[in-house]
Amino acid sequence: MLSKAQIKLVQSLSLKKKRGELKLFVVEGKKQVAELLTGSYETDSVFATQSWLDEYGQLAGTGTKIIPVTDEELKRISLQQAPQQVLALARIPGKFLEDPNARDRFSLPHSSLTILLDGIQDPGNLGTIVRIADWYGIRNIICSTDCVDVFNPKTIQATMGSFLRVDVWYADLAGFLSRAALPVYGALMSGTSLHGITFSRNGLLLIGNEGKGISEQLIPYITHPVTIPRFGGAESLNAGIATAVICDAWARTSTR
Amino acid sequence: MLSKAQIKLVQSLSLKKKRGELKLFVVEGKKQVAELLTGSYETDSVFATQSWLDEYGQLAGTGTKIIPVTDEELKRISLQQAPQQVLALARIPGKFLEDPNARDRFSLPHSSLTILLDGIQDPGNLGTIVRIADWYGIRNIICSTDCVDVFNPKTIQATMGSFLRVDVWYADLAGFLSRAALPVYGALMSGTSLHGITFSRNGLLLIGNEGKGISEQLIPYITHPVTIPRFGGAESLNAGIATAVICDAWARTSTR
Repeated sequence: MLSKAQIKLVQSLSLKKKRGELKLFVVEGKKQVAELLTGSYETDSVFATQSWLDEYGQLAGTGTKIIPVTDEELKRISLQQAPQQVLALARIPGKFLEDPNARDRFSLPHSSLTILLDGIQDPGNLGTIVRIADWYGIRNIICSTDCVDVFNPKTIQATMGSFLRVDVWYADLAGFLSRAALPVYGALMSGTSLHGITFSRNGLLLIGNEGKGISEQLIPYITHPVTIPRFGGAESLNAGIATAVICDAWARTSTR
Repeated sequence: MLSKAQIKLVQSLSLKKKRGELKLFVVEGKKQVAELLTGSYETDSVFATQSWLDEYGQLAGTGTKIIPVTDEELKRISLQQAPQQVLALARIPGKFLEDPNARDRFSLPHSSLTILLDGIQDPGNLGTIVRIADWYGIRNIICSTDCVDVFNPKTIQATMGSFLRVDVWYADLAGFLSRAALPVYGALMSGTSLHGITFSRNGLLLIGNEGKGISEQLIPYITHPVTIPRFGGAESLNAGIATAVICDAWARTSTR
């Protein structure tokens, strides 16, 4: 049985401010919640229908509150058009809540590409990029502070569980790039053809805003401007598509 | 000034049935409508704000009705959250309205990849795939008859104008494949690594439904099963992302 306070709580987590205050975010869907419960994130509570409890109930640890709900009740709190049996509230790990201007609050792996996102606005695009990073085994994404929040429910939904394996950080990209001693691949309209590039195993891939591309102030940090060759009439590719095509070229040409 | 009948007409075009009856579809956005007016499609009418008319008004041909609207009126007919100055009604070319079961109602170019889509349900995914095809100079997409309609307003919006350069056909894919004497590349989870394939210039690329992949009955027609190598934990890639990564490999390895 769902209380008014619970409905209000879940709904309030659509707002970034509330997520920051409560250190909670929403995870939906049968598969994604099952992954959440078996992953390293802490789960605060699970609003679950009987059919979900029958199949996955035993995954919930003792620290997790279980709130049985009907399909109708789930619809009232879900942000999905067709809610899938369950909605969970997960805890935002403390490491992501630290001051984004604090230096060196995260360390990057030595032998991987790290994706840098400059001003990505669409929650679905960010989620898709997290999923792509996960596919290619990339563990870190660094977003400019004006990017959409990764704990936005639409972003989490679009990651399809990949948020559990890819850490998304927020930082001042100019400051970060000025200290980075790595090749910086930047997706530009006038770079070297992607098909002629051999990537370094260890590097940074900078992807710009959906409409405006990479900001002026970050361009000087790009050591390898990269362009996806175009053969037809489309003016551009979506940010997620461009990220995937470049990550695939990195996986193809760099030595593991 | 907008009449009630006009509002009703535009709204009715969200329905496939109505689009088929009236042979009209909705195109929105400053850039996309300008491309429409300079392309080969016929434009029935343009609902335009003064700012759009000042900038682009001269693009409209004599056969096109111009209906001046205020920003408020545009909001009433637009399907966009933030309408962009203009909405046009374009005519669906007769060639797309013929019986999808008629044999050979379209011919494919001799030196290109053609994309075959099996059961794509999401209008945004189809639009993104049209845009990707356009980027790679691919002129034809053949959809199974249960795919979403390309003239769905959400699909048209996601193509970003690329619907003008890529023809999207609907056909019985099994029938089509049984007559096709071309290599058939199929995106599967257990094929040859994409990174080890040299594509033929002329071929078919079969992409499956978002959740279920390629239907059982079409699998036997695949001559070259292709898998995008995975290095991390994500279970799958979105259909649009997979299409882009494979098209890029085709452009990279096939001889132009």
